[in-house]
Amino acid sequence: MTIQIDRPKDGTLSVTTGPIQGSRKVYATPEGRPDIQVPFREIVLKGANEPPVRVYDPSGPYTDADTAIDLSKGLPLVREPWIASRRYDVTEARPVKPEDNGHVPADKLVAPCPAERVVRRAAPGQMVTQYEFARAGIITEEMIYVAHRENLCREAMWAGAEGKIADGESFGASIPPFITPEFVRQEVARGRAIIPANINHPELEPMAIGRNFLVKINANIGNSAVVSTAAEEVEKLVWAIRWGADTVMDLSTGRNIHNIRSWIMRNSPVPIGTVPIYQALEKVGGDPVKLDWEVFKDTLVEQAEQGVDYFTIHAGVRLPYVPLTANRVTGIVSRGGSIMARWCLAHHKESFLYERFDEICDIMRAYDVSFSLGDGLRPGSIADANDAAQFAELETLGELTKIAWSKGCQVMIEGPGHVPMHKIKVNIDKQLRECGEAPFYTLGPLTTDIAPGYDHITSGIGAAMIGWFGTAMLCYVTPKEHLGLPNRDDVKTGVITYKIAAHAADLAKGHPAAQVRDDALSRARFDFRWEDQFNLSLDPDTARAYHDETLPKDAHKVAHFCSMCGPKFCSMKITQDLRAEVAAMSPDAQDRLAGMRAKSQEFLESGGKLYVDQP
Amino acid sequence: MTIQIDRPKDGTLSVTTGPIQGSRKVYATPEGRPDIQVPFREIVLKGANEPPVRVYDPSGPYTDADTAIDLSKGLPLVREPWIASRRYDVTEARPVKPEDNGHVPADKLVAPCPAERVVRRAAPGQMVTQYEFARAGIITEEMIYVAHRENLCREAMWAGAEGKIADGESFGASIPPFITPEFVRQEVARGRAIIPANINHPELEPMAIGRNFLVKINANIGNSAVVSTAAEEVEKLVWAIRWGADTVMDLSTGRNIHNIRSWIMRNSPVPIGTVPIYQALEKVGGDPVKLDWEVFKDTLVEQAEQGVDYFTIHAGVRLPYVPLTANRVTGIVSRGGSIMARWCLAHHKESFLYERFDEICDIMRAYDVSFSLGDGLRPGSIADANDAAQFAELETLGELTKIAWSKGCQVMIEGPGHVPMHKIKVNIDKQLRECGEAPFYTLGPLTTDIAPGYDHITSGIGAAMIGWFGTAMLCYVTPKEHLGLPNRDDVKTGVITYKIAAHAADLAKGHPAAQVRDDALSRARFDFRWEDQFNLSLDPDTARAYHDETLPKDAHKVAHFCSMCGPKFCSMKITQDLRAEVAAMSPDAQDRLAGMRAKSQEFLESGGKLYVDQP
Repeated sequence: MTIQIDRPKDGTLSVTTGPIQGSRKVYATPEGRPDIQVPFREIVLKGANEPPVRVYDPSGPYTDADTAIDLSKGLPLVREPWIASRRYDVTEARPVKPEDNGHVPADKLVAPCPAERVVRRAAPGQMVTQYEFARAGIITEEMIYVAHRENLCREAMWAGAEGKIADGESFGASIPPFITPEFVRQEVARGRAIIPANINHPELEPMAIGRNFLVKINANIGNSAVVSTAAEEVEKLVWAIRWGADTVMDLSTGRNIHNIRSWIMRNSPVPIGTVPIYQALEKVGGDPVKLDWEVFKDTLVEQAEQGVDYFTIHAGVRLPYVPLTANRVTGIVSRGGSIMARWCLAHHKESFLYERFDEICDIMRAYDVSFSLGDGLRPGSIADANDAAQFAELETLGELTKIAWSKGCQVMIEGPGHVPMHKIKVNIDKQLRECGEAPFYTLGPLTTDIAPGYDHITSGIGAAMIGWFGTAMLCYVTPKEHLGLPNRDDVKTGVITYKIAAHAADLAKGHPAAQVRDDALSRARFDFRWEDQFNLSLDPDTARAYHDETLPKDAHKVAHFCSMCGPKFCSMKITQDLRAEVAAMSPDAQDRLAGMRAKSQEFLESGGKLYVDQP
Repeated sequence: MTIQIDRPKDGTLSVTTGPIQGSRKVYATPEGRPDIQVPFREIVLKGANEPPVRVYDPSGPYTDADTAIDLSKGLPLVREPWIASRRYDVTEARPVKPEDNGHVPADKLVAPCPAERVVRRAAPGQMVTQYEFARAGIITEEMIYVAHRENLCREAMWAGAEGKIADGESFGASIPPFITPEFVRQEVARGRAIIPANINHPELEPMAIGRNFLVKINANIGNSAVVSTAAEEVEKLVWAIRWGADTVMDLSTGRNIHNIRSWIMRNSPVPIGTVPIYQALEKVGGDPVKLDWEVFKDTLVEQAEQGVDYFTIHAGVRLPYVPLTANRVTGIVSRGGSIMARWCLAHHKESFLYERFDEICDIMRAYDVSFSLGDGLRPGSIADANDAAQFAELETLGELTKIAWSKGCQVMIEGPGHVPMHKIKVNIDKQLRECGEAPFYTLGPLTTDIAPGYDHITSGIGAAMIGWFGTAMLCYVTPKEHLGLPNRDDVKTGVITYKIAAHAADLAKGHPAAQVRDDALSRARFDFRWEDQFNLSLDPDTARAYHDETLPKDAHKVAHFCSMCGPKFCSMKITQDLRAEVAAMSPDAQDRLAGMRAKSQEFLESGGKLYVDQP
């Protein structure tokens, strides 16, 4: 999956910086820890006497008006002091080999990011993962950071609305009124949340993925077939997080991927995930049959040293499951899944990922790379949803989850795919059961196959639902899914669609802070505060542009009507008048109205002559 | 709500005609009724030895390559012989008054459609509505037509896949394997379905709205503030039904609406709905306080004679409910609701729509205009969802439903609005209970308030869910909702989004024919039959255009890979190879695989050393 970026005519390329329209970047510190600076975005309301609305902000320093960005230096080292204090071995980096960059000729080689970082690795037995710390009862700085980040404006909100409890149906999730660092520790220790945070990614602004936290979204990026510059690749990342992507997966293949990855890692404030089997396959010339443990292991070390925060590992695609896919309508649709299935069948051997899983754990643990256990057998069509192959693999992922935990690793589980609405809930229920509530991370699911070109929508429906039911992170789908490479607009559309799904899920789960923004926007709408309405929306630029299409003048941004109904027909205007009238009514008049209501109720309950029996 | 249409530079305007890419119009006749020609769209598969896929087609003769369209003559009179045989009074049409066209000056007057039609009206006591016929045990031609139309390719499908029952969770809907005319009659007689079909709309291709039929969608159109030509207005209708709108509401206000409506009615193959209070308000100069029963009654007759198939009547907005909205975040957001609330409070009187409901029924019955009982108090924000005002009105709508039935009228019920996911189901459950299973017709609902510019998506999520739960028709929302007037692209996006929601709902309900198209498309996808994949999609033009963006050549339309992964990484290609290999395996080898699977299962079930106890 790659994004196409149009190269500007003058040949220069820089990344998108500056605040989102109507917002400003703020940093806040948890009590007693002035050294921990947690970023938020504040939307300032212009037309009302209301406090700013504080929203979760994964966009990093790029949206900070006061930070200068220099890609060659990389981002500020937020985590460096915390990591340094844990005294890991600083090791010689694995030497870069020609195959790491796809044997690219010297004249086509993209230089690596010059930002210098030490490479660290935990000694055997030394605690390194957030899971290990959590299990040992230790609250890390990452946990403190995450707790403060997740709380948003909850304290302010609760102070202003005492006793107001968000309703919702959480399906067993239990989001507390306030997130404390100790709560984060407990969730990580139970394996119910992860904080993907490679010790070689000091630029990371820590975040949590778990059902008792805000629902997160992931965006996929990757290099183009044409030669990409480093800036182009970093821009894809910056663009995705600007609109709200919480993590980014780099699915690049081909040339220069090692060096380009160094630019991405050094300039990413969000966790970066990869699928190491893609690079391993490149190293053996693209033939799955030639893959082996040595080249895979070497790739894991290579990427872990660079700082990748989570790896998709398709260790659940086992030899005996391959025949289960033979009669599917769409077979195996996961790239990693099909590669491993090909390998298993060609060698007639059990998957080396499955057989060497212990060793994979040891490598990943040493850097705190989290597992994203891949669903290589996910359904690629409505017809194949919830079939034997899919669920056999999920059971194996449950088995592997427990091994990974016993090895001290953090784990999340990937999920489907194409699933009709009535088959969605069983997916998350089974996943929670089989995998001991390890975070679920799904692609959609798409609720029908018949809308290529609109699969952000077919999947947004499924994503909202499965997010509500307990999925912790939703992998976006763009309008180009099944058809081509997403461009900038597609990526933005995909991210915004998934922000909608995640937010709808937070609301339905009863997340205590979720509705604050809806309410602020609705008040702005009712008061005709157009600027506030735009700025509170997920995409202020588009909201404003759409309004401009019909009512372009600045005066219309304070107009007490809109283009849909015009001034005479405006229901909101009429209601505002009504509200004033009701408020001004005498107690007598109010009583009279109440009396009429009671009478009507009585009439209704009596049934009587109006009732028509049904045949 | 209006659509902006860009006027072509040369000043000419015509409507969009011609088949949808890759499809052809076919007509089929129910057994024994060669006089009844039911339209379908057939998607011909080019690359496979598969029968064409027959899909439901509300687009009328406009997509028939063999039909010449002449807007001034109107569409063929499909229903004329059936209606004529029922021997209604042919009456003098009510004379057109200057206020019907908003007192437009003579030089700005749009001429009415010259197509001549008689005006009919049932005599008192004469059976006229589909409900009355159904209750009397009479199967009308409209019912036969609808039954055949709903069956699609079910017979062919069932012949080819005996014993295969669609799974699904219907929440109490009971869609039979085949729809018979008698089944349609029963559903109409129970009030569980309606066939909106004014006897003055002989051009109508009858359709049903009910939870045991395919989920339908409605698109709203309306004139612009600038002068509209008749062709522009008809084009909005044609464009909406081309992409799948099953009914269209004309929400025009202002000048020329009577005459423009005549063009719409004479050229519409789908039921047309209106909100008569809008025109009534125009007639009294735009001041809700000046409305009265006489002007409203006159407007009902005016529009019923023109052939409007359903009226939104906000008779549930009662005086005692108005104060219940005073403390809402967004008050009353329905235009009709706020107009009536204003009237009630200003006069301090009960709504004349409520008090005169019997008389309204008598008028609507005489032409078989169906009720769409408006939800004037629907919530306009997440904060106001499912509140006392909304549910008080819904209870009143239940009361009115029973009155309308007792008067022989067809009824459906309008629903919200803005509702978070966890509060959606109670809406349909309560509606079914209060309103005796009369069809529910909802606007979305929008599942969050924070995404203006993307409200087709926020609402598409809610629409899919409430459709699954039993809503019979979904009113579309365009990307411009809350911001401005939808243009052509917005209307198409809204319609396609709602076709996705309706189809996802049909799949989840277990509709016996729904999955045929998904399966055909998925097979095409797996076989790299790109042309078939485009043509089977809801929007072939967009699917093809997106594919062209990355792989524009014709040769790529038969390529066995796509731009996402390229030829080396193609999971579908690998799976095709795998499938061949598994098929070629010896029975021994197959057994060995099966044995390994059993062993792994055994290991899993034994638990043992790998299991990690959870804290």
